[in-house]
Amino acid sequence: MSYRMPAEYEPHRGTIMIFPEREGSWPYKALQAQRVFAGIIKEIAKDEDVYVVVNPRTEAAAKELLAGSKNVFLYDIETDDAWARDTAPTFVYDGDAIKGIDWGFNAWGGEYDGLYAGWDKDNALAAAICAGLGYERIDMRHFILEGGSIHSDGAGMLMTTECCLLSPGRNPQMTKQEIENVLLDKLGGERLIWLPYGIYNDETNGHIDNICAFTAPGEVVLGWTDNKDDPQYEPSRKDLEVLEEAGVRVHKLPIPDVPVCVTEDELKGYVFEEGEDIREAGERLAASYVNFYFTNGAVILPQFGGENEESDKRAAAIMKELCPDRRIVPVQARDIIVGGGNIHCITQQVPAGAAFLKEGSA
Amino acid sequence: MSYRMPAEYEPHRGTIMIFPEREGSWPYKALQAQRVFAGIIKEIAKDEDVYVVVNPRTEAAAKELLAGSKNVFLYDIETDDAWARDTAPTFVYDGDAIKGIDWGFNAWGGEYDGLYAGWDKDNALAAAICAGLGYERIDMRHFILEGGSIHSDGAGMLMTTECCLLSPGRNPQMTKQEIENVLLDKLGGERLIWLPYGIYNDETNGHIDNICAFTAPGEVVLGWTDNKDDPQYEPSRKDLEVLEEAGVRVHKLPIPDVPVCVTEDELKGYVFEEGEDIREAGERLAASYVNFYFTNGAVILPQFGGENEESDKRAAAIMKELCPDRRIVPVQARDIIVGGGNIHCITQQVPAGAAFLKEGSA
Repeated sequence: MSYRMPAEYEPHRGTIMIFPEREGSWPYKALQAQRVFAGIIKEIAKDEDVYVVVNPRTEAAAKELLAGSKNVFLYDIETDDAWARDTAPTFVYDGDAIKGIDWGFNAWGGEYDGLYAGWDKDNALAAAICAGLGYERIDMRHFILEGGSIHSDGAGMLMTTECCLLSPGRNPQMTKQEIENVLLDKLGGERLIWLPYGIYNDETNGHIDNICAFTAPGEVVLGWTDNKDDPQYEPSRKDLEVLEEAGVRVHKLPIPDVPVCVTEDELKGYVFEEGEDIREAGERLAASYVNFYFTNGAVILPQFGGENEESDKRAAAIMKELCPDRRIVPVQARDIIVGGGNIHCITQQVPAGAAFLKEGSA
Repeated sequence: MSYRMPAEYEPHRGTIMIFPEREGSWPYKALQAQRVFAGIIKEIAKDEDVYVVVNPRTEAAAKELLAGSKNVFLYDIETDDAWARDTAPTFVYDGDAIKGIDWGFNAWGGEYDGLYAGWDKDNALAAAICAGLGYERIDMRHFILEGGSIHSDGAGMLMTTECCLLSPGRNPQMTKQEIENVLLDKLGGERLIWLPYGIYNDETNGHIDNICAFTAPGEVVLGWTDNKDDPQYEPSRKDLEVLEEAGVRVHKLPIPDVPVCVTEDELKGYVFEEGEDIREAGERLAASYVNFYFTNGAVILPQFGGENEESDKRAAAIMKELCPDRRIVPVQARDIIVGGGNIHCITQQVPAGAAFLKEGSA
């Protein structure tokens, strides 16, 4: 038995997303978030199927926003929130068969520093999706991990961050080496690169998928700033050192020039539950262009607008140069980042078959 | 471990088909067959994905006929002929996981009474499709079986025919009981109904899928004639007795009133290879309306035209009554039946996930 986690840029069967509704994540009854999610769903559906998990309470809204969309399939399943990257399975090849890894999920830190008080529904989602799509489930629920904390280049190289995977809220009983062995074994890598840091103020304890992403085997984009006064400066510099030492080819992908922060107006729109991590006005959000998503034909790229129009264009130009064969689809993502993550965090790819790859539509 | 073969009328992920080209099956370089196959592919693609296996030699023709079709995916794989029902895997649930059974294939009888001299490519197809779609393969290559010789109602009842499964060209070393045990074990049934006969002159040794098909659990349509002079009269009558004795609810689906036979003109169009079974002018083809196919939203129903216009309409009316929620899509199938089979024979369903079923498009 040998597993292999394909790279996100390898062919997909489809993409899993969750229709948002949690009022502690999405201000003003998630109405804006729902619109932006629906736009992303339709964009991805140009290239592949999209499986959208919908809480029964918001089914009518989802149906209205997605009416007439081809390749979009709705599934009634209750969830706690809408981060498919972290709560859906991580799909791997076991030989040629696709299987879904069901990791333990504890809302990014459980009792230690988790972001909400209850996460049973989110923790049950991966099993429902494996069954739902007809893939065997690999039971790893004893090991806490979110999909956003790992990346694979599909050719033997894996990446994660120390700040997240070694955080006491995940698997404190395990050594770094033991954690590494689990990842190499289950994701099929030959090497695991440990970056020390994520994006500043990222409440996931610094997921890899917000700071660094593969664009090809052994090649990455890294969230970056040249501004020495920015709290991102040192973390990115140290990550770069590790990547260069490991022989990884690095392209810098600068973060927004102007910090993206929660406004007073947005703050009034949230409804927090007891035990849930809350926001404050002026709080800096973990905005990064690295949190894009590869579909079969495109890069869906976050944009932050306003004073960051120039940074937005710069990021799009860098991604176009790195991915000349894909459409670069810029998406105004303010209404996603206020929830704490971005486009990569709300998507999870389902790989296509290994040996009999899609030739593309007829 | 317990397997279950879902009924064809349960939700599909998609349908496998093979683009035709073999000149011993499809007269005049298969040009008419290709057109009719393409029409069926497009019709199925209204309801689900269609995975079309294409020999490299006919890829250009397939692309031209299918240009612009949504939900149609082409795969370059060499085959001996175009009978996906018989050469693609039989998909079953193993718990919630979908797996593909790879039966042995010997061209409907091997050295004993097989229809062509070489079948290695067809025998390799099921493995390629399992790998290609990412499903685990259940290796049953030591047991000769074609998908067209079995039906499941998804609720524990299976059907096959004695004339085919007990034919010396399949598994002559096994007793009837041993064969039954394999089917009950691998397809997950509680009961196997053995019909004695198939459709008159069916060169598959009388596949079940041309004489009898489930339309609901414990409920079938049976190919029928009231004409005592027709060679189909006795076989159908005996099959009816077995079904009634087994407590199955039977709806008669009359065969075409006028026999469908090969014409001189058609005969001139075939190019037979050495060792291949050949046709003769005037030979009666195994025309039956039972060889329809269920998509997620439709019944794709063979029609024979000409003197059988009335029979065609009668069959469509019967199927509409039995399947009121599906579109009945009549397809002129003369150019398929000249190859020896019909719409069911050229299709093979890939089930959707078990526990998390498609709600339909958004």
